[in-house]
Amino acid sequence: KKKRDTIYSNRGMNLEEDINTSNDYYLLVERAVIHKKPTPIQVVKVDYPSRSAAIIKEAYYRQSSTTDYNGVYKGYYLDFEAKETNNKTSFPLKNFHEHQIVHMKRCNQQMGITFVLIRFSCYNRVFLLDSSYLIDFWENKLNNGRKSIPLAFIESKGFEIGYGFNPRLDYLVAVDKLLEMKMK
Amino acid sequence: KKKRDTIYSNRGMNLEEDINTSNDYYLLVERAVIHKKPTPIQVVKVDYPSRSAAIIKEAYYRQSSTTDYNGVYKGYYLDFEAKETNNKTSFPLKNFHEHQIVHMKRCNQQMGITFVLIRFSCYNRVFLLDSSYLIDFWENKLNNGRKSIPLAFIESKGFEIGYGFNPRLDYLVAVDKLLEMKMK
Ligand SMILES: [Mg+2]
Ligand SMILES: [Mg+2]
Repeated sequence: KKKRDTIYSNRGMNLEEDINTSNDYYLLVERAVIHKKPTPIQVVKVDYPSRSAAIIKEAYYRQSSTTDYNGVYKGYYLDFEAKETNNKTSFPLKNFHEHQIVHMKRCNQQMGITFVLIRFSCYNRVFLLDSSYLIDFWENKLNNGRKSIPLAFIESKGFEIGYGFNPRLDYLVAVDKLLEMKMK
Repeated sequence: KKKRDTIYSNRGMNLEEDINTSNDYYLLVERAVIHKKPTPIQVVKVDYPSRSAAIIKEAYYRQSSTTDYNGVYKGYYLDFEAKETNNKTSFPLKNFHEHQIVHMKRCNQQMGITFVLIRFSCYNRVFLLDSSYLIDFWENKLNNGRKSIPLAFIESKGFEIGYGFNPRLDYLVAVDKLLEMKMK
């Protein structure tokens, strides 16, 4: 039981923390406005002790219908997922949920900029990959295609993001490259 | 105690429900991707009964640092607050929080499209008002100016939104007018 809690709370925390810290920095220097969407929670029971704040006494995590992050940067709507893997040679597609793919497709239709930030934990390497590639792999998988995206593919089509001091993970540099590529 | 619960859960629900229903419709017909941001909740204690979902046993509502809604429409980042008033002649600025104003200013800097949807409950009239006017009134209030936005001002500078069947509140028509005005 203890072990399960630990796994649950640490899953994906490194990458997410780095992104959150970077987003705080981007806000501070007025470079972008990007927030992590709160986890949706279904509240069932609330107590209102007198003179103090409401206490939620029973609630459940709900499945998010969208992705982890969204916001605005230089007039562009950005929307993305952050994912980590311990795999060494490819990124397993089972890390994604159908609703995340659907959401990214919908945003693309509205000319939003959608992508994934993928971290290979063994190498501590992070890449930005445009959602169009992810969607292709996803649909190919549904037709009995391969179940993961090879690291070599991500290296060739994605943009690697270097770690720094502040922001810790300057992923907007990769977004700039993505925008440049898209505008061509 | 009962009464307080009721007030809490009904506050602003009419306008929000109409917007949520309209957003569902917009998603369905692929006209826009706009979601209500989940209320941020600070989880303190979670139980993991065997073989069933995690149950949150202690948690607290946190103040949101942003606004109610955001999303993407025709390449534009949209971000807005929904507010209702029982007031008959003006919209009281005390309905807004400083952080909401700050967030809208930040989004404007990034060329996002930010506004408020204001409902005058007595008349069941809903208006879209560009955030720039709200920000002007807010800053004027801080300099001992008036504490509300007159309905007459909202009628003249905002865009009224009619109620319909589906979508119930077709506020994207007002967004189109706003965009047209901004692009001039
Ligand atoms: Mg994630
Ligand atoms: Mg509101």
